[in-house]
Amino acid sequence: MRCSRRVSGLTRACELLIPTSPNSIRLVLYKLRKCLCFKLIGKPSEITDLETGTLGFLTPGPTSLPSTGSRSDPRPGLLRESCWAGPPKPIVVPGLLLPSGKDRNFVNTFIQFKKPIIVAVNGPAIGLGASILPLCDVVWANEKAWFQTPYTTFGQSPDGCSTVMFPKIMGGASASEMLLSGRKLTAQEACGKGLVSQVFWPGTFTQEVMVRIKELASCNPVVLEESKALVRCNMKLELEQANERECEVLKKIWGSAQGMDSMLKYLQRKIDEF
Amino acid sequence: MRCSRRVSGLTRACELLIPTSPNSIRLVLYKLRKCLCFKLIGKPSEITDLETGTLGFLTPGPTSLPSTGSRSDPRPGLLRESCWAGPPKPIVVPGLLLPSGKDRNFVNTFIQFKKPIIVAVNGPAIGLGASILPLCDVVWANEKAWFQTPYTTFGQSPDGCSTVMFPKIMGGASASEMLLSGRKLTAQEACGKGLVSQVFWPGTFTQEVMVRIKELASCNPVVLEESKALVRCNMKLELEQANERECEVLKKIWGSAQGMDSMLKYLQRKIDEF
Amino acid sequence: MRCSRRVSGLTRACELLIPTSPNSIRLVLYKLRKCLCFKLIGKPSEITDLETGTLGFLTPGPTSLPSTGSRSDPRPGLLRESCWAGPPKPIVVPGLLLPSGKDRNFVNTFIQFKKPIIVAVNGPAIGLGASILPLCDVVWANEKAWFQTPYTTFGQSPDGCSTVMFPKIMGGASASEMLLSGRKLTAQEACGKGLVSQVFWPGTFTQEVMVRIKELASCNPVVLEESKALVRCNMKLELEQANERECEVLKKIWGSAQGMDSMLKYLQRKIDEF
Repeated sequence: MRCSRRVSGLTRACELLIPTSPNSIRLVLYKLRKCLCFKLIGKPSEITDLETGTLGFLTPGPTSLPSTGSRSDPRPGLLRESCWAGPPKPIVVPGLLLPSGKDRNFVNTFIQFKKPIIVAVNGPAIGLGASILPLCDVVWANEKAWFQTPYTTFGQSPDGCSTVMFPKIMGGASASEMLLSGRKLTAQEACGKGLVSQVFWPGTFTQEVMVRIKELASCNPVVLEESKALVRCNMKLELEQANERECEVLKKIWGSAQGMDSMLKYLQRKIDEF
Repeated sequence: MRCSRRVSGLTRACELLIPTSPNSIRLVLYKLRKCLCFKLIGKPSEITDLETGTLGFLTPGPTSLPSTGSRSDPRPGLLRESCWAGPPKPIVVPGLLLPSGKDRNFVNTFIQFKKPIIVAVNGPAIGLGASILPLCDVVWANEKAWFQTPYTTFGQSPDGCSTVMFPKIMGGASASEMLLSGRKLTAQEACGKGLVSQVFWPGTFTQEVMVRIKELASCNPVVLEESKALVRCNMKLELEQANERECEVLKKIWGSAQGMDSMLKYLQRKIDEF
Repeated sequence: MRCSRRVSGLTRACELLIPTSPNSIRLVLYKLRKCLCFKLIGKPSEITDLETGTLGFLTPGPTSLPSTGSRSDPRPGLLRESCWAGPPKPIVVPGLLLPSGKDRNFVNTFIQFKKPIIVAVNGPAIGLGASILPLCDVVWANEKAWFQTPYTTFGQSPDGCSTVMFPKIMGGASASEMLLSGRKLTAQEACGKGLVSQVFWPGTFTQEVMVRIKELASCNPVVLEESKALVRCNMKLELEQANERECEVLKKIWGSAQGMDSMLKYLQRKIDEF
């Protein structure tokens, strides 16, 4: 067991690393270039890999952060199969944590993205990995996937526009249970509540998703983009404002002694568990 | 069987009491201090008790009407266990009926309440007892609970902001079926439609709820309050306006001969059933 | 097999008829009086019949397009039983396709309609037949009914305010799966997602619906209309704007060579299948 811990306040880079054994879900919290990120699951060596994201996007490029979709090439490409093939992997998304710089723009990129975003979830989607899903368009999940946003447990407030989108999708009762009480949803439950479009059996997940992706990609790309714009146009301003608000509240909580204290206490408990 | 019936118009106090046998669900309609209230289930002797409400709130004080939550003590307390322990009891909430005075403020109190409101429903939730649920945050229900808003059946229009919140939560088709057609939902159905967060078996209901309440109460109260504010801030104005509109329509219906007539006819049918 | 095909651009009447064998589902696309309509299922001889619609409305008049509901006779009448009795029939609604004239007003009529609209779906609801459902109030479905909006498949963008109402009802993930990816829902799935209020077995469908319609029709009509107004008042402007936007986008797509091309390609594929 190794534990590197350097906390130096919010204006300086810090790291809180909890080394993990292979294949187990652990928390890694670190601050990088004015951005305090948290990741659930992940060994330090995986961080670079995680930065690129394991979300599957229906974009022409590699499965990194989506670009905002240029008019000149609106045709969606195919997802890299490696995104969801193989054993379940968690969706891990770097948390936007400080409301400045390019990190805050991560969520905004989803809000502004013009082409349909298709997600194939084949493992746990935790924190921002789950809260970002309503900013995507179609969400297909492996039966083994699960979804959790345990923000309050480690002293954080929700992000990724989940405070606006979760209530819209599943109603306040379920949204608050996830966002305040940290309830973990199975893939079927997430589908029943509208967070997921459809659930497939693990054995045929890749095939089922590929068939549908190919059908979608064969449609007129202008029609796809215009249709997405019709669905989303009403929400854009509301989502931008929600992103702003959520960032401001996170800033406030982390700026308070109490907020940082409860997060560190949570981490200490996790460290003590080793 | 005893039947006291004094109707003296809307500007004077009136009572329409239908005495009930013990433990049976009956309708009690009465007017008190400029407020015509209806209660489903309840013997006259229970009225005072019902005034305090049997909703379980995550508040520091007794389970009466929630105060608006002062900043000085934002930490939520535990629910009184008696609120949901024991045999199923209905959630009975005094109906706001006339759009003036403190009674109209009942619904507004929920809209303005800053701390998370947790409800544990262990019996029937009828009328305002059901329609107020979307103004709460987490709603856990006993498998035996059921939910009904049979407003139109006795000549009333919906209240408790249900005309705005029910469509948001479950879509117009289910909302109108409940609000116009009076459909009764089981706990599982209410959960499937998003009115309820989760359903538990009667045998372990109290335990399951207590575990979750304690977890919630152990979270940083500032984070809980800020998170709720993020979820609710977008809806506050809309809900205040909905409450106003619903009160105005109820006033109009009761002010009309036809509106009062259909309500009295409904009561007469109930009286004749004895 | 007979195939009449005359395409003469958008400013002139055109017909694209695909003759069908009896009782089979086929596509008929035709343009009539400045309106390019599509109908799924239907022989040319059925067109006049289909014009009147097989939607069941809770209106005093015949089951044609609903009038806007006059104040002078607000009491809803009973549905013509023939609307849903007998073997399953598809709901076929003429597609509003050009954003001008009375055809565009078809959707607007639903938006403005003051009395509750009750729909009994006893067969497939495709395209506008499905997308118009959220503008109705209560939707009861036969277990054999199914629902599909395969707009993008034949190069169209969604209409009937579905780009606003589908996400509201079922969340973006399911809405986009239906509107972009063309997923077909069973009656039970449509009910789970909130598009349908309740599903009944085919054997007792007519009876179950009739009981509920009669109960509804026995309510105070003023209360019904006021209650519907409360539920809908908040959405009217948003829906009018959505209808406008959807019409504009359809106009744009059809005006483009690419848009018309992909629609004709789809039709050619269908013709070639004979």
